[in-house]
Amino acid sequence: MTIQIFCVGGTIDKIYFDAKSKYEVGAPAIGWLLDELSIHFNYQVTSLMAKDSLDMTDADRAEIRKAVESTDSDRIVITHGTDTMPETARALHGIVGKTVVLTGALAPAIFRNSDAAFNVGGALAAVQSKPAGVYIVMNGEVFDGNLVRKDVAANRFVRLD
Amino acid sequence: MTIQIFCVGGTIDKIYFDAKSKYEVGAPAIGWLLDELSIHFNYQVTSLMAKDSLDMTDADRAEIRKAVESTDSDRIVITHGTDTMPETARALHGIVGKTVVLTGALAPAIFRNSDAAFNVGGALAAVQSKPAGVYIVMNGEVFDGNLVRKDVAANRFVRLD
Amino acid sequence: MTIQIFCVGGTIDKIYFDAKSKYEVGAPAIGWLLDELSIHFNYQVTSLMAKDSLDMTDADRAEIRKAVESTDSDRIVITHGTDTMPETARALHGIVGKTVVLTGALAPAIFRNSDAAFNVGGALAAVQSKPAGVYIVMNGEVFDGNLVRKDVAANRFVRLD
Amino acid sequence: MTIQIFCVGGTIDKIYFDAKSKYEVGAPAIGWLLDELSIHFNYQVTSLMAKDSLDMTDADRAEIRKAVESTDSDRIVITHGTDTMPETARALHGIVGKTVVLTGALAPAIFRNSDAAFNVGGALAAVQSKPAGVYIVMNGEVFDGNLVRKDVAANRFVRLD
Repeated sequence: MTIQIFCVGGTIDKIYFDAKSKYEVGAPAIGWLLDELSIHFNYQVTSLMAKDSLDMTDADRAEIRKAVESTDSDRIVITHGTDTMPETARALHGIVGKTVVLTGALAPAIFRNSDAAFNVGGALAAVQSKPAGVYIVMNGEVFDGNLVRKDVAANRFVRLD
Repeated sequence: MTIQIFCVGGTIDKIYFDAKSKYEVGAPAIGWLLDELSIHFNYQVTSLMAKDSLDMTDADRAEIRKAVESTDSDRIVITHGTDTMPETARALHGIVGKTVVLTGALAPAIFRNSDAAFNVGGALAAVQSKPAGVYIVMNGEVFDGNLVRKDVAANRFVRLD
Repeated sequence: MTIQIFCVGGTIDKIYFDAKSKYEVGAPAIGWLLDELSIHFNYQVTSLMAKDSLDMTDADRAEIRKAVESTDSDRIVITHGTDTMPETARALHGIVGKTVVLTGALAPAIFRNSDAAFNVGGALAAVQSKPAGVYIVMNGEVFDGNLVRKDVAANRFVRLD
Repeated sequence: MTIQIFCVGGTIDKIYFDAKSKYEVGAPAIGWLLDELSIHFNYQVTSLMAKDSLDMTDADRAEIRKAVESTDSDRIVITHGTDTMPETARALHGIVGKTVVLTGALAPAIFRNSDAAFNVGGALAAVQSKPAGVYIVMNGEVFDGNLVRKDVAANRFVRLD
């Protein structure tokens, strides 16, 4: 098993530049999160872009879809900003024979109480467990990628019925 | 969906008593770990015992099996010490119609770099994703409960082939 | 001994608003930092303003000076943004009979590897140990408030000779 | 300024060995704590022994005193177990021309909410600020080494009057 991890930015990767008193998307957090843990299966981390998810365009989603289709792996995790994660999930609909799990974080991975490690653990378990399809793992839940939205006011993901 | 979480002790729950300079099994860590996160599905945390897994007996495993069989939920997570986690997994073999996922941690949840949140995230995702059966989630992997052992020297879980 | 703690904002107090993907000055971090510790002397935390230190004006510094002069306590800690901390230290020059220690953090207190607790511990020790005067505690050093500058490129405080 | 840091063990340095489900004194935590921070003055970390402070003997305290007397530095920090820290402070009484500050932690430095970084920050500030003598920095306070005891029941340090 080789799990391909694509990273496109979002809150999970946010870091802070003191010089500018600003908060920007940094290198993929999932890289150092997994380095800190005792992981023994094969995985590859590839940064496709580093964007706030509100800034992602149709062209960005086409690029992500192409990357998912092109990789040899059939188990793919994508770390992504939360605001438009469901849109990207839907843009990946219909890829045959691959399990794709999107995740991210509500607080940057460098925060003391970030949900990043919890979510990444969930995404890795889901990508190994689910049949082909597109899923979102957030708030401790495995959502079908076509049946989830972000409730921005409540800052959580909600199942569509 | 209501996920039943049983806790039986182990490293994940270890705390430190300064007065005695000793390290003992405390209250279930998964309780406060999930309290810190933004979880919106129903779950129930029940402490069955608080033991080092090396101290667990056949009677303890029978008690765990009984609890799994008795609960109304068909999605069960068990936090457990790592040393005999595979033995308990095998003692749960053959329960019909329930997905059971065991997890724990190689470092106590109160440590800065504990794998506890990562593992718990994985166990929750696996219990929602897997068909009925018994599984272990450790080291970022979802193992079949009959096909896994702990490599004590390497301090990691290994798939049996 | 009652230590008066004034908070004026800066990186130490920065929090992150996911909704806006922005990083803003929040409530004083020194409050919850000290709440987490086992502190038994009397102290009072007072928020005077919540500003990036680059935005602080002469009027702000006059307000801080007035607060220091007015408090009954003769042991005062000020948490402050790092960029203009030396300017504020110099604006407090000449207050008689009071020990004033400024500190802050290079990374927000909510970060996993923030220097906030380390710096706050240093500031509290210095304010109890130093004779009347104005000091800055950063990077593990106790600086004379008139003899220190921030080296912005190196992101550290440097003694003037 | 070169600060000499001697380490003799105690809770601050406690680590956990999963294999043995035991908690033992490890390498000096102050070393990696300071490595994580942005420190630019000269300091040297020397491990003299690695003991629970309850196990320390008069011979151990004589060895510590000899080390303090022998070092070229006149600014010395000692990380020490909390239970007999006051005894060691008193055993260092009367060393001329040197400022000695003992500190430690109520929870191991590897814990998420340890007081270690806060205490170490305080000890470093005190050792730079205090005249020659022996001091203990714990619970955010700078105590005279002759006028402090540990209240074991309350798990805190208390000033003797």
